[in-house]
Amino acid sequence: MDEFRLIDAIHHAVRGPADPRVRIGIGDDAALLAVQSGQVVVTTDALVEGVHFRFDLCRPADVGWKAAAVNLSDIAAMGARPLALLAAIEVPAALPERAVVAAMRELARAGAAHGAPVVGGNVSAGPLFVMTVTALGEPVNGRVLTRSGARAGDIVLSGGFLGSGSLGLDLLGSHTEWTRRFPTLARAYRRPEAQVGLGLGLAALPGVHALIDVSDGLVADIGHVCAASGVGALLDAERIPVHPEARRYARLTGRDALDAALSGGDDYRLLAVAEPSTAPLCEALGMTAIGSITARRGVAVTSAGVRVMVAGAGGWRHR
Amino acid sequence: MDEFRLIDAIHHAVRGPADPRVRIGIGDDAALLAVQSGQVVVTTDALVEGVHFRFDLCRPADVGWKAAAVNLSDIAAMGARPLALLAAIEVPAALPERAVVAAMRELARAGAAHGAPVVGGNVSAGPLFVMTVTALGEPVNGRVLTRSGARAGDIVLSGGFLGSGSLGLDLLGSHTEWTRRFPTLARAYRRPEAQVGLGLGLAALPGVHALIDVSDGLVADIGHVCAASGVGALLDAERIPVHPEARRYARLTGRDALDAALSGGDDYRLLAVAEPSTAPLCEALGMTAIGSITARRGVAVTSAGVRVMVAGAGGWRHR
Repeated sequence: MDEFRLIDAIHHAVRGPADPRVRIGIGDDAALLAVQSGQVVVTTDALVEGVHFRFDLCRPADVGWKAAAVNLSDIAAMGARPLALLAAIEVPAALPERAVVAAMRELARAGAAHGAPVVGGNVSAGPLFVMTVTALGEPVNGRVLTRSGARAGDIVLSGGFLGSGSLGLDLLGSHTEWTRRFPTLARAYRRPEAQVGLGLGLAALPGVHALIDVSDGLVADIGHVCAASGVGALLDAERIPVHPEARRYARLTGRDALDAALSGGDDYRLLAVAEPSTAPLCEALGMTAIGSITARRGVAVTSAGVRVMVAGAGGWRHR
Repeated sequence: MDEFRLIDAIHHAVRGPADPRVRIGIGDDAALLAVQSGQVVVTTDALVEGVHFRFDLCRPADVGWKAAAVNLSDIAAMGARPLALLAAIEVPAALPERAVVAAMRELARAGAAHGAPVVGGNVSAGPLFVMTVTALGEPVNGRVLTRSGARAGDIVLSGGFLGSGSLGLDLLGSHTEWTRRFPTLARAYRRPEAQVGLGLGLAALPGVHALIDVSDGLVADIGHVCAASGVGALLDAERIPVHPEARRYARLTGRDALDAALSGGDDYRLLAVAEPSTAPLCEALGMTAIGSITARRGVAVTSAGVRVMVAGAGGWRHR
């Protein structure tokens, strides 16, 4: 692999239309970005071959897309507007240049879809393909949504179907022959969509108190909100949105769709906590109420009024 | 390795005094930083085990320090003031937790030395230890120094000794027994100091036209400036600052100290291009004039008035 040729090919692949916020882009010691709001949000997350993806289950373009999406989802989970992406990649000698370029092109496409051009990066040799992405964003109207504002009595809402991501991984790993039968699950795993617009909409509602995205799993992530806010949560299993494909796939394979929704992770749906009077506005934005915040610590899940799961300090257990 | 315990230990290790610019630090979906200048500079660079460092030549703390320094050096090379660091790390299962914590603690120390607290990051499993750092900074008085402002007739100045980094690597790899005899070389490789203060000083001088840091090597890096500016450079071998230890080490081992200075890389000294009337001010900041910018493209090196090296599109060659 010729490193300079690869870098040139990447520059070409990630190039987009001129963005007035990008004063200096790729090619200098650092990028220079205009920040109108006086505040910037920034996050970094990596996709490591063999840990977060496998090339027999995903194409390089999928990896590039997802590397952008998981970072943009963190920007969305602050209720912020994306500003730019940087990508530091590690490239094994045996990986074809076209695979690397395809991954970077798709990273740039995913960023561009949310107004975040690629403004910098780094290419290094390494034993496995790794994409470490940094995403920057800006608050709109000076407000961000953190994990720490939840209050007892608030409503918990999900930005979409849960469990599809982990069942998609199960599908691709164990039942490749059914990939076309369950396109939504495959896509949820390979091509998650960061809910940027939803996050911005929620940040505009004063009654929204906390926001996070589901990456570790619903119970774990609402647990992060509860820990940061000093409260607990009670989730209603019947109200958790599960995609019909997820139900069908679970029935067919003996998987538990509710379990996938509660603890599967990899969904990148936003999870909002809002006061009851604001919940209808969140629902108007496409969210679904799935439970409420309690003064009592810990996360519990009820089904038909019966507690089926309790999460505490030592992880969760079925009851 | 318990991932959550490791993350907790890292949070503890990188914690510093409260910084009013950090509105939200580690622990939410993203960090929130105040940006007073309305502009932010941002860069990312990785240190990969086996590619950029080896644990038999460097301690984990050295790796953490250097991961910060190489990124802060890119901020310095824009003439900007550091604002914050993020670190996405890949951790092999066999690496002791204390090694990871030591690396992260030293990363934070190196950042704190330049006013850049660690505000976020990510921990992933991986086959080798990797530290991918993102550094953010801010321009002071709205001005940054790029690679593209050099003009024919300008003076080229170096921020310090060149060649020490690559001879330091040679020392540690081939003559470990002499490490104590050549402490400056060992330190130049293991613990480079980003020239942040110098970069800020240069950005305040209107006659400074271009700035870069020496990471690839003097000839390659002044070549980047020349390519971006549409000019060439003529360097005077006798004026290139080489540390006495580098000269002694080269004599003792048959290495070429000038060659190390010209093409060794890993020095992280700033390289400025300034108009002749400003050169004395740069020298007052501790820089050394080493050559001049020419209208004719390409980089040439003369020794006692004779061309000893010419760099062109196909790399450089000795004459």
